[in-house]
Amino acid sequence: MSIEKDIEFIVLLEEMKKIYRRTKIIGESRRENDAEHTWHIATMALFLEKYAVKKIDVNYSIQMLLVHDLVEIYAGDTFAYDVKANEDKFSREKKAMEKLKSLLDDENAKKLETLWLEFEDMETEESKYSNAMDRLQPVLSNIFTKNGGTWVEGKVTLSQIEKRVAPIKYLDPRVYEFVYTKLLENVKQGYIINE
Amino acid sequence: MSIEKDIEFIVLLEEMKKIYRRTKIIGESRRENDAEHTWHIATMALFLEKYAVKKIDVNYSIQMLLVHDLVEIYAGDTFAYDVKANEDKFSREKKAMEKLKSLLDDENAKKLETLWLEFEDMETEESKYSNAMDRLQPVLSNIFTKNGGTWVEGKVTLSQIEKRVAPIKYLDPRVYEFVYTKLLENVKQGYIINE
Repeated sequence: MSIEKDIEFIVLLEEMKKIYRRTKIIGESRRENDAEHTWHIATMALFLEKYAVKKIDVNYSIQMLLVHDLVEIYAGDTFAYDVKANEDKFSREKKAMEKLKSLLDDENAKKLETLWLEFEDMETEESKYSNAMDRLQPVLSNIFTKNGGTWVEGKVTLSQIEKRVAPIKYLDPRVYEFVYTKLLENVKQGYIINE
Repeated sequence: MSIEKDIEFIVLLEEMKKIYRRTKIIGESRRENDAEHTWHIATMALFLEKYAVKKIDVNYSIQMLLVHDLVEIYAGDTFAYDVKANEDKFSREKKAMEKLKSLLDDENAKKLETLWLEFEDMETEESKYSNAMDRLQPVLSNIFTKNGGTWVEGKVTLSQIEKRVAPIKYLDPRVYEFVYTKLLENVKQGYIINE
């Protein structure tokens, strides 16, 4: 693999700064992009290790987080509560992964795919921890935006959110308790629908 | 340290998405922020390990990169070529570090300060590698923006850039060669001043 090809991949990463998620930046009207989201959860992983219930290799979790959304460079962001778009999400992302791999040398291609699949499978302790970070960050954004954020926009129900944030339960129970208390407050304020 | 305090720190990290650097996003008119920059270089570190000349613990480099700009939450971004602002940069950032540490438990406070100081000192192999990533990314942005980017804006000279990008020399020489060839092209195009 030539230096030019490797630089090309590094420059391609720039696209992550142009893929916007639903979540809004706290205190601002703009949405956050994949690069911002990913930095946030990777750094959370570094500081929240004490909330991991089982022993984990936090560095491996961080690696998973850094790359888990790269497929969106080709497959785009899929809103968590968009049922239809989520139906073919994995097959779209699988194709995107093949495209990304074709740009990398064998070792890096294997590394990327392994990390991504492990993150998606949510079976290892590191993957569970990483997924917990990935689900915790947007819920905190909505909580601290203090106007219901994307829950109001998306007319999201409590049971939908409960399903979405379930991986947070992989952490020390205090984290889910904190989140759930805040969710109930948002129900009370009318920001979350409780059917 | 209570869960509420830890969550508070995680929410504070959001500020990194509001600190804008000089570098512009390739193909867009807006500048990039610290969260985007930091994600980019941490992910570069993961994929460019083969360009490290000596054996490094890439995970430690990634940790350094994830946190190296956190002081800017309180100290703000200092433009690399602003001589005056760089005079008291370290003392401003040292104060910011104390403030950040006061929000963390002892273990996390120590981890953060250690990583930051090691990054700043540029003495260990991991720090050299991390600093190379930190200097490589903005230079690639300027190169691939194809209009001289912040070099034109800042009336920057080749010798200033040479000094700035010197840590790239810690990597396999092919990387610096790639960059330097592009710098000379930008001199030829009149984007970089060659005194």
